[in-house]
Amino acid sequence: MDPDPFFEGQGKLSRRRIAVLGLGLMGGSLALALRGKCAWLAGADPDSRTLELAQKLGLFEALSSRPEDVVRGADLIVLAAPVGAILKLLEDLPAIHSGQTAVLDIGSTKRQIAQKMESLPERFDPLGGHPMCGKEHGGLIHADPAIFQDAAFAFTPLERTSPELRALAGELAVTIGARPLWLDPDTHDRWVASTSHLPYLAAAALAASTPLEARPLAGPGLRGAIRLAASPWSMMGGVLASNRLYLLESLRRYLESLQELERLLEADDFEALQARLQAGAQNQAYLVGGELQSTPDHKGDDHAGDDRRDRG
Amino acid sequence: MDPDPFFEGQGKLSRRRIAVLGLGLMGGSLALALRGKCAWLAGADPDSRTLELAQKLGLFEALSSRPEDVVRGADLIVLAAPVGAILKLLEDLPAIHSGQTAVLDIGSTKRQIAQKMESLPERFDPLGGHPMCGKEHGGLIHADPAIFQDAAFAFTPLERTSPELRALAGELAVTIGARPLWLDPDTHDRWVASTSHLPYLAAAALAASTPLEARPLAGPGLRGAIRLAASPWSMMGGVLASNRLYLLESLRRYLESLQELERLLEADDFEALQARLQAGAQNQAYLVGGELQSTPDHKGDDHAGDDRRDRG
Repeated sequence: MDPDPFFEGQGKLSRRRIAVLGLGLMGGSLALALRGKCAWLAGADPDSRTLELAQKLGLFEALSSRPEDVVRGADLIVLAAPVGAILKLLEDLPAIHSGQTAVLDIGSTKRQIAQKMESLPERFDPLGGHPMCGKEHGGLIHADPAIFQDAAFAFTPLERTSPELRALAGELAVTIGARPLWLDPDTHDRWVASTSHLPYLAAAALAASTPLEARPLAGPGLRGAIRLAASPWSMMGGVLASNRLYLLESLRRYLESLQELERLLEADDFEALQARLQAGAQNQAYLVGGELQSTPDHKGDDHAGDDRRDRG
Repeated sequence: MDPDPFFEGQGKLSRRRIAVLGLGLMGGSLALALRGKCAWLAGADPDSRTLELAQKLGLFEALSSRPEDVVRGADLIVLAAPVGAILKLLEDLPAIHSGQTAVLDIGSTKRQIAQKMESLPERFDPLGGHPMCGKEHGGLIHADPAIFQDAAFAFTPLERTSPELRALAGELAVTIGARPLWLDPDTHDRWVASTSHLPYLAAAALAASTPLEARPLAGPGLRGAIRLAASPWSMMGGVLASNRLYLLESLRRYLESLQELERLLEADDFEALQARLQAGAQNQAYLVGGELQSTPDHKGDDHAGDDRRDRG
């Protein structure tokens, strides 16, 4: 990564002894992606079935239901649990690790975690992280090292985060196929309210408001639109709670946008409706990786006829 | 399909001469799926690039920019255009086809089309249809016979629709891999408002309300949630206009559902929020093909810790 000799032997992932606390979808996927890339890999999870499966995978040099059993041998501790559990682990860490160590969390929100990290003793070198990937079904059973491929890996350093850990985090992200992205915890939380937490609420509300009797006409469009509603509450509850205000802001913007569509439909104003919906299509194209167009997009406009005549 | 000798030689798809009017995504996919399954296949589309591509595909015995050039040889005319264009074609049909023929449309809404079909001369045998599949990008270039696989193919017969055409439609659906589903035009339109048209509005509004600066944190969740926003207005404009009232009903239900989530977030009432969102998850599971659970679902609940403690 960085040719600076200062980092030699310090930032190098291959020499690191890593303990992953929490072996659900994200922790498990990370462990799979780190297999053979570090000097030592340990895991802990409170769930006995998860531990059994982890044992079978043969990924870990050490494995336990108790974090204290595996963190002692580590010089990089990865906290891979729901936000609430990460906050609890950060409280417990000083009591169960007495030496110097780097600490990286991969929780879904960053402000509360950054605050808690600030109060760690000086011997800890903390950094917030959040890989922008996942699946709607959690658990080690669904773990997959490929989920990091081409995903952004957000890092939200504290002032106290060492240059060595910043270099190591960048190396770790690239090693697992992700793109490191550096930003502050507040900006992270404001953005993910829109890109992650609101889409979950929107999907759940859409699923909740769909008449069940309409199921025979549910096609791939609906299925894709409500997929996120299946995200486990065990994960999402703490996420929403730790980002409540930004989520509310983002939800209110969404409601305004929908209410504007409602007004235009009520007024039968299809010219303005078209403009609104095509603005949505433009944003969609940009958000999924395209460029912003200065003129409305007419994708697929190869159909016959005048579509507007049937609205009378 | 049906062993009744009455249908022999009448319902049989293999003996039919089919003209597909409109060679976009749906008409093109249908033509590809019917290749070799019928006695004769013709196509028409007003777009010259589409005709060039259709020519290259070598699918059609006859091909023209003008419907009148291809319908004369047909005994099943398939109207595969946006809703507005189908209504126009139904008006033109008596002038361009002087004999007896079956007419099947595959437009996205069915009430307006059924009304227009009622006024066709008696020599026409009309039936409404709507395969519940598609892609957000239109055009013959994206046509794919596999899109019908395991999809519901809704049919909305009129009283005048002959038993022969009903049998033929069932055979056609099964031949292309779809499941025929019979219902009345009004029920169809009410249901697709929820399963198809509202998800499009919801995706477009979500994309429109997402801050563009958040793009670096857009992951697969957001991408899936806003995918439908890319649906072409050339197709969706007429669809929304022809189903405006049911769409408004469905949109209002969605707004209520979202406003309830807003109230619960404002009140910091995570117990009620959990109940609401898990009800959404239950509906989601049912709508994508699962069974309704009598107790809340705890999928992926294999994570450590108490997620609720971080909401203070």
